[in-house]
Amino acid sequence: MEQKIPYKIYLREEEIPTQWYNVRADMTHKPAPLINPSTGKPLKAEELEPIFCKELIKQELDNDTRWIDIPDEVLKFYKMYRPSPLVRAYFLEEALGTPAHIYYKFEGNNTSGSHKLNSAVAQAYYAKKQGLKGVTTETGAGQWGTALSMACSYFGLDCQVYMVKCSYEQKPFRREVMRTYGATVTPSPSDTTAVGRKILQEFPGTEGSLGCAISEAVESATTREGYRYELGSVLNQVLLHQTIIGLETRLAMKKYGIKPDIIIGCAGGGSNLGGFASPFIGENLRGEANYRIIAVEPASCPSFTRGKFAYDFCDTGNICPLAKMYTLGSSFIPSANHAGGLRFHGMSTILSQLYHDGAFEARAVEQTAVFEAAEKFARVEGILPAPESSHAIKVAIDEALKCKETGEAKTIVFNLTGTGYFDLSAYQQYNDGTMQDHIPTDEELEESLSKLPHID
Amino acid sequence: MEQKIPYKIYLREEEIPTQWYNVRADMTHKPAPLINPSTGKPLKAEELEPIFCKELIKQELDNDTRWIDIPDEVLKFYKMYRPSPLVRAYFLEEALGTPAHIYYKFEGNNTSGSHKLNSAVAQAYYAKKQGLKGVTTETGAGQWGTALSMACSYFGLDCQVYMVKCSYEQKPFRREVMRTYGATVTPSPSDTTAVGRKILQEFPGTEGSLGCAISEAVESATTREGYRYELGSVLNQVLLHQTIIGLETRLAMKKYGIKPDIIIGCAGGGSNLGGFASPFIGENLRGEANYRIIAVEPASCPSFTRGKFAYDFCDTGNICPLAKMYTLGSSFIPSANHAGGLRFHGMSTILSQLYHDGAFEARAVEQTAVFEAAEKFARVEGILPAPESSHAIKVAIDEALKCKETGEAKTIVFNLTGTGYFDLSAYQQYNDGTMQDHIPTDEELEESLSKLPHID
Repeated sequence: MEQKIPYKIYLREEEIPTQWYNVRADMTHKPAPLINPSTGKPLKAEELEPIFCKELIKQELDNDTRWIDIPDEVLKFYKMYRPSPLVRAYFLEEALGTPAHIYYKFEGNNTSGSHKLNSAVAQAYYAKKQGLKGVTTETGAGQWGTALSMACSYFGLDCQVYMVKCSYEQKPFRREVMRTYGATVTPSPSDTTAVGRKILQEFPGTEGSLGCAISEAVESATTREGYRYELGSVLNQVLLHQTIIGLETRLAMKKYGIKPDIIIGCAGGGSNLGGFASPFIGENLRGEANYRIIAVEPASCPSFTRGKFAYDFCDTGNICPLAKMYTLGSSFIPSANHAGGLRFHGMSTILSQLYHDGAFEARAVEQTAVFEAAEKFARVEGILPAPESSHAIKVAIDEALKCKETGEAKTIVFNLTGTGYFDLSAYQQYNDGTMQDHIPTDEELEESLSKLPHID
Repeated sequence: MEQKIPYKIYLREEEIPTQWYNVRADMTHKPAPLINPSTGKPLKAEELEPIFCKELIKQELDNDTRWIDIPDEVLKFYKMYRPSPLVRAYFLEEALGTPAHIYYKFEGNNTSGSHKLNSAVAQAYYAKKQGLKGVTTETGAGQWGTALSMACSYFGLDCQVYMVKCSYEQKPFRREVMRTYGATVTPSPSDTTAVGRKILQEFPGTEGSLGCAISEAVESATTREGYRYELGSVLNQVLLHQTIIGLETRLAMKKYGIKPDIIIGCAGGGSNLGGFASPFIGENLRGEANYRIIAVEPASCPSFTRGKFAYDFCDTGNICPLAKMYTLGSSFIPSANHAGGLRFHGMSTILSQLYHDGAFEARAVEQTAVFEAAEKFARVEGILPAPESSHAIKVAIDEALKCKETGEAKTIVFNLTGTGYFDLSAYQQYNDGTMQDHIPTDEELEESLSKLPHID
């Protein structure tokens, strides 16, 4: 049996799941609703319609439908780069000398370089179906912007990307991929929006922030005819689309009779962890399984392990709705950790509720230890991992080494969300020995958490 | 039947071919031997031993053995990233509105980003087997250096890479991937070799060249105890290792009853074209098939289409052996075409002899047309191609459009050698509309061809 498991398990194309899984249907305590900061009341669908596509709002607010059909056009696009392989990490196991069986689902083999494309294509499809001209979004490191550019190019939609200015300048390659896919990329803050002009006036020479880019993208969507705003993480709809990862993983494991013991994913806004783990969490919730699930976050931005479960703004500019989530406070500014995708003060409301209810554990890890794991992994498995994904690698290795001590042959599976080809300045710091770890002090966190809005 | 062909055909891991195919065994006219420039006579194995590994020299000189076993350790490494998919370009066909069936073998899904790893692992394995401490090489754009770094890291060999100085500075990301795999990367020319010091003294401030980096790498290999030099293209041994591409392609096509009409590959030194096409060329040579095979080269460096079939030096410094090949003259300096892997004045001796004997056709294409094809391909197939590979894409599209005119449903297959993630400054030029085409004048070529050494 053992001998027959290949290095890479590929499902057949006709086995790609045709429905997304909505974990909210299996949750006893549903995630708390988004709150309109100006009324203090839960947001209604119609209040969201100037910003988001109708069908996506429906998905955002749907706490009950367990399975949601994937449209045929989205399934067709999925076949461009899916199914993604479930890899048996034989080389890593050998290098560690562990009796553990390690697997990873690899989401990096597409030009966006990450799992983000799974939701981008769905969001672009619904925008097209609604008859829109285009969409706007923001991007920090660039994965999400690239993914949405690819999806928009395919569906013939205009794509306006507000890219945090320092990334725009430091990551010209990401910018050029987006332009190659026909997107317009604007460094944020810019003079193309009122909020951008205001920020530029107040802070001349600012390098921008994700919060500021969100504000510009939202303004841009709501002031252009036929545009809506799209977002690549945190939202319930994004977690929903990303369940294609976990569903494929579960199917591949079932085909080979593999039963996971430990399931590991990195957590920033929650999109990959939620998508990867929620089909397994659902089994636990329904009492069908007892998987151990671990969320890994950077010690520099430890929402789960040191944050508070409370209502907070999702953006630093405090213009977005309030969400009940694990948060470090919207005024918390995480240090310049190289895992840009994990530098968010808050967390998905679904995952926050699940964590609050004890559905999984969380662990915070430091940056240099993460890159040490990344290097080890790259050398034996032949894939240069993204810094975000490397957080999951670090904990997978830790767990595999525990197995080595105890002699247990546990089955560990983690989500390798993407590749690190555009993160090489981070690798350079690691190679040069100049990388540092930044862990917020208790005082810093108390300060930002003291500013949480008062809502129950 | 048509309906059943998936978007991506993956062979099973146990179907990976276990032997490389040596096309020389099927050639009536064998490639002309390498000549020692100091004696004017064919090089003997023992003259090559200070530079190359013994087993690789055997492969280099073997014109007779049709099938050569792939060592188990190399096959194991191949399973890290192979089999590579044969993709049916349904999206491209749809976008072009062609009745042609287009397929591509995709070699870019590994961290080296190209097919180079297929030979790197073989060369590193034989170095390890010979008990060497390490190997040296040169790299221009960086794919080969990255591939060899990955292979050396796996086998525990030291890897010394001389990287053309301008690339070292302009492509720091490639450099960091190599360092992450433990290689030492030295900008060339350097003061670590006698030839490097000499060049630096003569041309202070020079940005280096591939010819100069080769000289340094060879000196470094021959003056260090337990080192040999390894090269990623041109050589017979490299073409041999790369046949894994063509053999997998042929097997995948046979499994689905697909019969190719036209086979297309880009040609620089010849490694991917030779590896991809030679199993098919072999069928033609043995009278078993009648495939049309097209080599695509840049109009800026047109060895096949405008060069001469003659003995010439392989390097600009004229220290390497003489090879009989299609050449533009070793003093020809191709313009700064972005397809760095195709900027070589000469060509594989095997492919040169085959072309001379009419085994395939050749076509030269201009750079902006190549990037136009690359962009079209990226937008519909979801893969950002390397500039080198995009030469093949350009001709595949041209042939598919001819089918659209004639209504013929020909089957076209090309080799997509790699991804363009490290070539985005080239894409930026294309996106900005500042890209130029450089085609050498007849006078330029006459000048460089007039300096060919006189050997028959």
